[in-house]
Amino acid sequence: MASEFVYTRRVEFADTDTANLIHFTALLKFMEEAEHALYRSFGLVGYRWSDDSVFGMPRVSVSCDYLGAVRYGDEVDVRLRVREVRRKAIRYSAEFTIDRPGEREAVARGDWTVVCARREHGCRDWRGIEIPSPLKERLRALTAVPE
Amino acid sequence: MASEFVYTRRVEFADTDTANLIHFTALLKFMEEAEHALYRSFGLVGYRWSDDSVFGMPRVSVSCDYLGAVRYGDEVDVRLRVREVRRKAIRYSAEFTIDRPGEREAVARGDWTVVCARREHGCRDWRGIEIPSPLKERLRALTAVPE
Amino acid sequence: MASEFVYTRRVEFADTDTANLIHFTALLKFMEEAEHALYRSFGLVGYRWSDDSVFGMPRVSVSCDYLGAVRYGDEVDVRLRVREVRRKAIRYSAEFTIDRPGEREAVARGDWTVVCARREHGCRDWRGIEIPSPLKERLRALTAVPE
Amino acid sequence: MASEFVYTRRVEFADTDTANLIHFTALLKFMEEAEHALYRSFGLVGYRWSDDSVFGMPRVSVSCDYLGAVRYGDEVDVRLRVREVRRKAIRYSAEFTIDRPGEREAVARGDWTVVCARREHGCRDWRGIEIPSPLKERLRALTAVPE
Repeated sequence: MASEFVYTRRVEFADTDTANLIHFTALLKFMEEAEHALYRSFGLVGYRWSDDSVFGMPRVSVSCDYLGAVRYGDEVDVRLRVREVRRKAIRYSAEFTIDRPGEREAVARGDWTVVCARREHGCRDWRGIEIPSPLKERLRALTAVPE
Repeated sequence: MASEFVYTRRVEFADTDTANLIHFTALLKFMEEAEHALYRSFGLVGYRWSDDSVFGMPRVSVSCDYLGAVRYGDEVDVRLRVREVRRKAIRYSAEFTIDRPGEREAVARGDWTVVCARREHGCRDWRGIEIPSPLKERLRALTAVPE
Repeated sequence: MASEFVYTRRVEFADTDTANLIHFTALLKFMEEAEHALYRSFGLVGYRWSDDSVFGMPRVSVSCDYLGAVRYGDEVDVRLRVREVRRKAIRYSAEFTIDRPGEREAVARGDWTVVCARREHGCRDWRGIEIPSPLKERLRALTAVPE
Repeated sequence: MASEFVYTRRVEFADTDTANLIHFTALLKFMEEAEHALYRSFGLVGYRWSDDSVFGMPRVSVSCDYLGAVRYGDEVDVRLRVREVRRKAIRYSAEFTIDRPGEREAVARGDWTVVCARREHGCRDWRGIEIPSPLKERLRALTAVPE
């Protein structure tokens, strides 16, 4: 059974649109913020390794189902799960919930896959690399599924 | 065979991130912009009907695969297709391409579903409605598939 | 002497741009978030009065000086001050600081003016109104300057 | 008398907020887009010199007065003027207008200063540099004011 990492984010004014709802891309930003908060919880700071080289986790695939209205001021819990840790890629899912009076409402569900990459050619390009072992172990501990 | 509606959008500085690439949510904004450009091409202005009532097309589901690097200054063609027109919902897909010297590169592919809705209770809520006939006909003409 | 209200915000990936810095508009979003956090600290929830009517605080003027590099992962303190409370308008300023090892760095300074407004004509328009007394009093207490 | 460079931008759904207006930071993005369109009109592509080194024009100061309502679907003309070209800095101003039936409405006015900079230490830092002569000459021709 996968562990859940919970990241809470308030919907700010700039996250909303003329429909009086959160813009659909803002929930996807929250998704990425939750993932980065997970990395920070492992001690990774600003996408830098101890040797000061920079890596990244570009998304290769994203999907999201919108289930309920999310509005300015709402506090959204992003309930992140690590679904699969491969050699170079990680698959995540998240349920987005809001605690309404008397109930927890699921307002969206997302799935996404990131790959581990390292910069090369100065600042311009990225090359896929294996996920470094310490990070891979921390992530696999969260999936809690034997390989 | 579905017709293609092409919307061209330059990647602006604010669309990019520290990875030196377009932020993944910016391509999803381009997707929505392309869809709205399609509605404008039908004569719909600012999500208003002739009786000045307001409608909207909230997204209920979105997915995107990222296939290639998109950077500041690139001109992206969003090649929109109407996949299915239901009573209250429309399914779209898009291929995102960039014309590189000597080739057209597919940099992303997206799918999404919107529902037609109308405001009620002042400005606060939305209720699903049937897609108005004139709009439905224009959209079905683009799917060019017999029902 | 004006009191300071401090709002802390981490720079997220989506806030940055290809220059490897925060996008200049993101600091202005933090400014607005700080102001809204101040209103929430007064018990205002989601820009709604007790009678469920909606008000807003549109900005009429904004300025910002950028003094230092702000990057992905930085924690920015927005140090908000209420400069002046007029009948319909409020003038704020903020210093943005980052606690670096051994020093507090001022990375930006902003000034802005908002007016109190209420919706009319359905959802479309806004009309300037007097700042409601309870809000005005809370704000004036923060300026701590006799009128 | 300064020449005017006009950049036209439609207000997209993602540019708006719950107030049913453009978010105040979106007009500042349009400002930056107009400035970059000016550089492109000079033949600069993607902030790269002919030797493929990268430069940037970070903003050091920005201000904007908001004069009228800007909404989803509006076409905004950013009327850019080059106010002053110094050794390392450029000062711009812009009037934002919308062509309404029978009149041109000024909806905002902005001023900002950028400095020319070059990356160093890999991708991380920026150092102020003199504006390269060809760019300086093109900009000074637009100010059309003797030095």
